[in-house]
Parts: sequence; C-alpha cells; structure tokens
Amino acid sequence: MTMLEDYLEKNADRIDKVIHRYFGDVHGDLFRASAHLLLAGGKRLRPAVVILAADAVRKGSSDDLLPAALALELTHNFTLIHDDIMDGDVTRRGVPTVHTVWDEPTAILAGDVLYAKAFEFICLSDASDAAKVRATKMLARTCAEICEGQSMDMAFEKRDDVTELDYLEMVSKKTGVLYGASAAIGGILAGANPVQADALYQFGLNSGVAFQIQDDLIDLCANTEMSGKDRGSDIREGKQTLIAIKAREKGLDLAPYRRELTPADIDDLIARLNDAGILDEVRATAVERAEVAKQALAILPDSEEKEILMEIADYFIARGN
Amino acid sequence: MTMLEDYLEKNADRIDKVIHRYFGDVHGDLFRASAHLLLAGGKRLRPAVVILAADAVRKGSSDDLLPAALALELTHNFTLIHDDIMDGDVTRRGVPTVHTVWDEPTAILAGDVLYAKAFEFICLSDASDAAKVRATKMLARTCAEICEGQSMDMAFEKRDDVTELDYLEMVSKKTGVLYGASAAIGGILAGANPVQADALYQFGLNSGVAFQIQDDLIDLCANTEMSGKDRGSDIREGKQTLIAIKAREKGLDLAPYRRELTPADIDDLIARLNDAGILDEVRATAVERAEVAKQALAILPDSEEKEILMEIADYFIARGN
Repeated sequence: MTMLEDYLEKNADRIDKVIHRYFGDVHGDLFRASAHLLLAGGKRLRPAVVILAADAVRKGSSDDLLPAALALELTHNFTLIHDDIMDGDVTRRGVPTVHTVWDEPTAILAGDVLYAKAFEFICLSDASDAAKVRATKMLARTCAEICEGQSMDMAFEKRDDVTELDYLEMVSKKTGVLYGASAAIGGILAGANPVQADALYQFGLNSGVAFQIQDDLIDLCANTEMSGKDRGSDIREGKQTLIAIKAREKGLDLAPYRRELTPADIDDLIARLNDAGILDEVRATAVERAEVAKQALAILPDSEEKEILMEIADYFIARGN
Repeated sequence: MTMLEDYLEKNADRIDKVIHRYFGDVHGDLFRASAHLLLAGGKRLRPAVVILAADAVRKGSSDDLLPAALALELTHNFTLIHDDIMDGDVTRRGVPTVHTVWDEPTAILAGDVLYAKAFEFICLSDASDAAKVRATKMLARTCAEICEGQSMDMAFEKRDDVTELDYLEMVSKKTGVLYGASAAIGGILAGANPVQADALYQFGLNSGVAFQIQDDLIDLCANTEMSGKDRGSDIREGKQTLIAIKAREKGLDLAPYRRELTPADIDDLIARLNDAGILDEVRATAVERAEVAKQALAILPDSEEKEILMEIADYFIARGN
C-alpha cells in the first residue's frame, strides 16, 4: 500500500465515523433513505480534499472542519441519489439505489434532505462567519453548476455533434466543480486568501476533470472489478465520452459497437482506437489536466498536505492502469 | 381593496420585478424550467413576511434584504416543483407543471437549481456575516423539515389512523416552518436578537398552520375559483385533513364520499359536518393558531409593519369566508 492509499484509508475511516455518528441510527423511512448510500461506503475523496486543502493553508486547522468535509460528501451523495433516479440506475456502491429500495418520491426527498444538511454542516464548522458565508456561496454556485452538468450529460445522449469543448464543459460541471469546491472550501474555512482559494479551486477542478477522463478510459480498458461496470458499457450505450468524440472526429465509426460486446469485440475496438492514436490523445488530455491541477498549488507553501494533494491528482489518472 | 391587500399587491409587484431581473431571460432548458413557475406569478406571501419582519425589527432595513425575500420564494418554488412530481399534479398557478412541460429529470434538476439559488441569495443580502450564517442554518433546517412534512403527507395517504397531533406535526413541517423561517430570517438579517427571532418564528409557524387549516376548509366550502381545485377534492381523494380526522373521531364516516361528488353531495356533507360541530371546531383551531401567532409579536415594538403582520395572520384565516 502506498503512502497515499494509507492516508486515504485512514481518512475514510475518520469520515465513516462521523457519518455513522450522524446517520447511523436515524428514524423513519425518509432519513433511512437519506443515509442509505452514505452508509454503503465510498472512498470519501471529496472530504479528503477538504481536509488536505485546509491543512495546506493552515496546519492543524482540519480538526475544526470535519463538518465541512462531511458537507461535501453529503453534496456528492445528494447528486448521486437524484442522478440514479434520472438515469434509472439500479445499483450503486454495490447496493440497490435509493429509488429502487424505496420509491422515486422518497428518493427525491432523500436527496433533498442531504442537500439541506450539506449547507447546515458547512455552517457548523469551526471557522469565522465571513469564511462560512464565502463557503456557503461557493457550495450554492457549485450545486447549480452540477445540475447544469447533469442536464448537459442527459442532453448529449440525444446528440451526435458533441465537441471536445462541450464534453470538457460538461465534465467540468458534473465532476470538476465539486472537487474544486471541496479544495476551495477547505482552504477558505482555514483562512485562505482569495488567491489561495482560487488556486485550490483550480487544483480541484482540473483534478476532477482528469478523474472523469480516466473514468472513461477505465470503462473501456480496465476489468469489470476495477470499474464496477460492464467493460465497454459507455461504448455500448453510445455515451459521448472523450474517446467517442475523438473517434468520431477521426472518422472512426463507433455506431457498430452500440450492441452487446464480447471481450474480443472490445479488444478489437481498443486496437483500432490505439492505431488511430485516440487512446494516447485521451490519456494525454487527462495527464495535462492533472499537471495543470498540480501547478496551481505552486503558490501554496510547501507542506506534507500539499504533497498529498499532488499525489491525489496523479492517483486520479493512474487508477486502472 | 383593504390596506393589507394593497400592501400585498405592491409587494408582489416589487418581488416580481426582482424575479424578472434574475429569471426573466435565462438560457437553456434547465434554467427556463427553473424559472417556469416563478414567472407564473403568485401572491409572494413569504417574501412579504421576510420584508415586514425585517422592518418590524429595524425600520428601513428591508431594502437590503430583497435577495433574502427572493430566497424564500425560491425555496417555496423548489418544493412545489418537486412536490408536483411526487403528487403527479399537472397544473399549478394556472400553468402546466414543470415535469409536464419538460420531463421528470428536468423537473428534479430545475428544483435542485432553485434550491441552490435560495442559499446563494441569502448570502447576497446586505447583512452581517453572523446574521447570514444564522439565516443559512435556519433555511437548511427548514428545508429538511419541509421534506419530512411532505414525506408524512404522502405516508398519511396509506393510513387511516392519523391523529390530530400527527396532522398538526405534518402541516407545521409542510407549511408552517417555511413561514416561520421567512419571518425569522427577515428579522435575523435585520439584526433581531434571539428572543425576537424566536418570536417571529413562532408568528410565522402558527400563521402557516392556520393558513393550511383554512386551505382545507376552502377546499370543501369555497367555490372552485377561490380554491383553484375542484370543490371537495380532498374528501374525494380521502386526504387526511383536520376535517376528515375530526369526522372519523366523531364516528362520521367519510368513506362513502371517496367518489365523484355532485354539488348536492358536498352540501349534504357540509350540513352533516356542521351538525356534528366539526367545521366549527376546525375553524376554532385555525383561529386559535392565528391568535398564538399574533400574540408572539407582543415583544416587538409597535410599528406599522407589526400591524400588517398581524393582519396577515387574520387574512390567512379569513380567505374563502
């Protein structure tokens, strides 16, 4: 186990304890539905980014900010519950989705409850009121952008003219901004000045985009155990990933692959994408984003936490390789 | 037109202008869906309560608090959009509901966008950071309670043992707390001390409960134009209103009325409910709540705004009479 994996595991244990304290023994269907996915585990990457960013700005500040770290996990979980309804997904984190165990109305409300709790927990952190107001504004703007990202993602399903720029805007909003907000909110609550907060935001945003691009590669190239999905599911469903967009721009038609795919089909497709240089280009885009993320941290003083944040950016694009 | 109606109309015009400035010319399906119900009008009662409460605490403060007044209207609209999905309602404020014009995924996201904007607008008010943090916490707790209220309301549909206490808890959460938060947030942002903020909360909470009980009476007794619904729709659908609960407790069986009702059926039912003293009791409960609301304001200094707030409590239980 690398140092980073060790750190992330310890962090996840710490966040899990907080989650169990607040959500482990709730009463009533609605609150149990809200807690369902939270209690199913997860890597708690966003809370880790909150805490690391806080300590990178002011060493030792993160103990006061566990509620804010939880707030970012709650925000993520609220979006998952609502997205699962919209996308009709039936499993997540190895458990049935909320609307599958309960029903759609309960799932809508369960997401709405976590949404409220996220804002409440930001305000329960031990930080100045001015910082809490800045953090609240940032979380609010971020939530609206995530909705836009999900809306774009759904609209892309009906389009065949999505450009790389459209894709990057969509993943920035759907995945990037919440990592951006995680880093910036951690920093802000620890007393970051606006330049530091902006650098942390850029770190998170670009790391998040790199993460999503790597996710697309994992879906195609990694085994099912790693991705948690059937290999090649994005291609089979005709999703507008960066791989699909670049293939289309290079005249490689993926339409024949919108069907049940055997492992041999997928290996054949990977070979064709490799020959056309597409997978290299996609990997290069992810690497570039991770580099931009790390460079943004240059203005912060050197610290162990800054190092770990940089390792996280590298880890995001190393997964599945 | 009474002075109160004149005030409410001027207030609605003012809020409508703010709404049109922010939501009148938005781009993209998602933001148009978010703006749809907002632009369909409404009495803007919650913003009125925000503004009156602010001026009742500190005269002249309300100009700084228009964003907060808007925030409470956005919160109300977010809950309407999500409730309409859950309840399968097809019209609202005389226009088709959001999920009917667009689709359910867009409606879920449209509500989520307004939810975010509500928190953002609280923070955009001109008030101290400490006050904004208190207001944000209150709005967050209120939103979670509204979800609980809606969840209870849906669960009641499957029960025939709902008590008056259950009912009062449900309407407190579904309707009361948002009026409570409107009054308290207006006060807090204007500099209210905790005792004043609590009094304003109690005013709004009890007014809101009175409002909801009166709504149940209107559904049965007022003409369709007033209620915006078919007369007797609650009885036809077997809703657990205070009328239905008291009827059951007095041995008056409403089950035979769960069908299409003619005006004569409804008049006959009203006569039976009157004979059993049920409508008087329900009216008395609404009056009592309005009195509690008004009494809560006693600790505030006398002002024109305090008078108007008291008139609002009376207006809530006079509608439809």
